Amino acid sequence: MSTAAVAITPFAALSFEEKLDRLALVAVRVGLNLQPGQEIVVSASLEHIPFVRRITEHAYKAGANLVTTLYSDDETTLARYKYAPDSSFDFAAQWMSDGIAQAFRSNAARLGIAGANPSLLKDQDPSKVSRANIAASKASKPAMELVTRHAINWSILAGATPAWAKLVFPDLPEAEAVSKLWEAIFKASRIDGDDPVQDWKNHGANIHKRVKLLNDKRYHTLHFKGPGTDLKVGLADDHLWAGGGGVGGNGIFSNANIPTEECFTTPHKDRVNGTVSASKPLSHQGTLIENIQCTFENGRIVEANASAGQDALRKLIAVDEGAARLGEVALVPHSSPIAQSGLLFWNTLFDENAASHIALGQAYATCLIDGEHMDDAKLASKGANSSLIHVDWMIGGGTMDVDGLDADGKAEPLMRQGEWV
Amino acid sequence: MSTAAVAITPFAALSFEEKLDRLALVAVRVGLNLQPGQEIVVSASLEHIPFVRRITEHAYKAGANLVTTLYSDDETTLARYKYAPDSSFDFAAQWMSDGIAQAFRSNAARLGIAGANPSLLKDQDPSKVSRANIAASKASKPAMELVTRHAINWSILAGATPAWAKLVFPDLPEAEAVSKLWEAIFKASRIDGDDPVQDWKNHGANIHKRVKLLNDKRYHTLHFKGPGTDLKVGLADDHLWAGGGGVGGNGIFSNANIPTEECFTTPHKDRVNGTVSASKPLSHQGTLIENIQCTFENGRIVEANASAGQDALRKLIAVDEGAARLGEVALVPHSSPIAQSGLLFWNTLFDENAASHIALGQAYATCLIDGEHMDDAKLASKGANSSLIHVDWMIGGGTMDVDGLDADGKAEPLMRQGEWV
Ligand SMILES: [Zn+2]
Ligand SMILES: [Zn+2]
Ligand SMILES: [Zn+2]
Ligand SMILES: [Zn+2]
Repeated sequence: MSTAAVAITPFAALSFEEKLDRLALVAVRVGLNLQPGQEIVVSASLEHIPFVRRITEHAYKAGANLVTTLYSDDETTLARYKYAPDSSFDFAAQWMSDGIAQAFRSNAARLGIAGANPSLLKDQDPSKVSRANIAASKASKPAMELVTRHAINWSILAGATPAWAKLVFPDLPEAEAVSKLWEAIFKASRIDGDDPVQDWKNHGANIHKRVKLLNDKRYHTLHFKGPGTDLKVGLADDHLWAGGGGVGGNGIFSNANIPTEECFTTPHKDRVNGTVSASKPLSHQGTLIENIQCTFENGRIVEANASAGQDALRKLIAVDEGAARLGEVALVPHSSPIAQSGLLFWNTLFDENAASHIALGQAYATCLIDGEHMDDAKLASKGANSSLIHVDWMIGGGTMDVDGLDADGKAEPLMRQGEWV
Repeated sequence: MSTAAVAITPFAALSFEEKLDRLALVAVRVGLNLQPGQEIVVSASLEHIPFVRRITEHAYKAGANLVTTLYSDDETTLARYKYAPDSSFDFAAQWMSDGIAQAFRSNAARLGIAGANPSLLKDQDPSKVSRANIAASKASKPAMELVTRHAINWSILAGATPAWAKLVFPDLPEAEAVSKLWEAIFKASRIDGDDPVQDWKNHGANIHKRVKLLNDKRYHTLHFKGPGTDLKVGLADDHLWAGGGGVGGNGIFSNANIPTEECFTTPHKDRVNGTVSASKPLSHQGTLIENIQCTFENGRIVEANASAGQDALRKLIAVDEGAARLGEVALVPHSSPIAQSGLLFWNTLFDENAASHIALGQAYATCLIDGEHMDDAKLASKGANSSLIHVDWMIGGGTMDVDGLDADGKAEPLMRQGEWV
C-alpha cells in the first residue's frame, strides 16, 4: 500500500483533529492493512464516534466495500445491571456473534477500538459480571477462534475516553486528562514521526529480528526471577515466537495490536511451576485487580491472591479448566516507549506492551508450528491451552531477570533488569 | 401488562425528559408489548442516543434479557457515497441481516426508531442510491419476511432529529424546530393523555371495530375518486383487513406502528386500473419525490411521473416485477389527529396515517385469511404481490371519495370527502 497519502508535517504542528486523523489512517493502513473490496466490522464505544468517523473515511478511501460499526454504551450496560431480570446475566446475543463469525468467514476485517471505562462495573455484583462475561465468551467463541487463529486481518487500537483518562490522570481536570491521554496514545501508537507508515515498517522489522533469534534458540523453558517472582514457564512443543504483525489465513499482513512491543509464544499448559507477582494492576472487564500473587503447580494455579478484586480474580480462573492455566508468555524490554512513559494505563493493550507478561486462558494456535491446521486435540497434545478467556497480566519490569533453559535445564541469560542481554 | 408504572401527571406539566420517557415506555409496553425474557434488537440513528437509553431502561424494567441497538450514522453513510469504490453499492452486510433473522427466529422483538434525515441522499448519484437499496433489501429479505409475516412482536416509532425538523418547520430556528417536532410526535403517538397505555387500548379497540365492519363487507374492489384520481383497486381473494395492532406468530400482541390510524389490506396485484395522484410528497430513503402521478393497467404501473425525484421513482418501480404493482391499500379518515395537525411530516410513518394510501411492492401475508401459512406460490395465486420493496404513498385527503364495489360492480359509499360515511 502506498504511503503517499501521509503528509510530512511535524507531528507537534498538527491540530488534535489532524493527529486523530493520522491515528485513523494508521488503524486502516497499518493495523488492518485493509485491502480493496474488504468489509470491516468495527466495535467501539459511543464516546468514539468522531474517531470512528475518521476511520470510516480512511477505510472507504482504501477501498472498503462497507464499514459497519457496532457501538457499545456504558449507560445502557449499567441499566442492564440495575434493571434487567436475573436471567439476563446468563444470556448473550448469539445471533450477533454468529453474524460476526459469518462476516469473518466472508473475509471481513475486524477493528476494535479499546478505551471504554475500565472500572465501569466496579460497583456491580461480581457474580453477575462474571456470568455475563461467560455467556458473552461462549456466544462469541466461533468468532473469537477465527481471530485467535488469525484467519483474517484484524487490529485493536485505543481511543481516549473521560472515564479512562480520569483513572490514568486522577489529579487533572477532565478535559486536560483526556487531552493528555490522547497524546500518550498517539506516542505509544508510534504515529508521532514524520512518516508513521514507514516507522511502523521499521518497528515491525526490529521485532521480527528478535522473534527470529528466539525461534532459533528453541528454549524448553523460561525462568522469571524478580521481587516476589520465581516462575518457570515451560514452552509448548513446536512453539513459535511471534510479534510485530503477521500474515493471516486470508493472506493479508496485519498488526493485530497498536501499540505492540512484545515477542510472545505459547507456554506448555502443564509445565508452569513457581510463584509470580504481578508488576502492574489488571483491569478486567470493568473490575480492577491489584497486587496479584499466584502459585502454579504443573501448569495450574493452586493459590491466587490479590489486594483488591480478589473475588473477581478467583471467579476468572474458575471460568473453566483452562482459565487457571497459561495461554501466552511474552517478553517486553523495560526500555519500551510505553514503559518509559512511566504511565500506568489501566488498559492491557498498553500495559502489556510496557512489561513482560503472561496470559491466563486461550493460547494462540498461530504460536505453534503449523498450529493453524491443528484441531483442538492436536493443539492440546502440543501443550497449547484452551479456554473461554484470554487475560494478559503483567509480571515484568526494571527488576526482572529472565533466563532461557534448554531441555537439560542449562540456563542462558535472556534479560537482565528488564533489558535484553 | 400492568399500567401501574404510568404516572397520572397532566402531560403539559411534564418536562421534555419526562415526555421522552413516557414515549419510551409506550414504545416498550404498547408498541412491542415486550414479554419478560425477550431480547430486543433496536435500530436507531446516533441522534437518538438519549431516546434509546430511555427505551433500554424501560425494556429491562419490563424484563428484557438483552437490548442490542444497531446505530446508523448519516455522516459515515455520506462518507461511503463520497469515497467508497463502485463495488460498494452492490454490497450489503449479509452477515448482519442473517444475524437479525436468527434473532427473530429466537423470538427477539424488533424496535425501529425512524427519523433520520429524510433528504440525506438527495445530492447523491440516484443510481448508486438505488443499487445500495436493492443490495440492502436483498440481504435483509429473510429478516424482513419474518417482520412482514408478523412472526414476532415488532414496532416502529419516531424520534425527532435536526435535519428532519428543519424539513417540517423550515422557517424556525433549529432548536425550536426540533422541540416542535418532538411535540408533534408526542401528540401523534397519543401519549398526551393521563394514561397513554389505556388510551392506546381504547384507540386500538376503535380501529378493530372498523376493521371488523370492512371484513364483514368482503368488497371485491375499492374505487377512489378525487382530483387527479380515478382508480379501481381490486382486493386480493380472501383478503383480510387489519389495523390497530395484532397478535404475531409468537403469540404476542403488538402495535407495529406508532402512530397508527389506518385500516389496511392486500390488493389484487393484477386488478388495479386507472390513474392516481399522490396527495403528499414521498420521502424515500433520502430522496424527496413530489407530485407523483401514475397510471395502472391490470395491476401494473404503465406510466409514472413526478415533478421532483422522477428518476428515483422510476428506478424504484423498476427494482423488480412486483415493484410496479400494489402490495397494500389503506383507508385513513381525514379527521385523524395527524391529518388535523396540518403538518407534512415528510415521513411515511406519520404521513401514511394522515391519509388513505397505497403501497408499491411486498404485500402483508397477514392480510390474507390463513396467509401466514401460505408459501409464495399460494400467496401469489390469491393475488398477493411480492417484491423487495414496500413503499407507502399517500393518495387520500379531504376531497377523496371511496366506494366499495361487489363482484358485480355494485357500489356503496365508504368515504365521502375523506370521512367514513
Ligand atoms: Zn501479549
Ligand atoms: Zn495476550
Ligand atoms: Zn399503510
Ligand atoms: Zn405500508
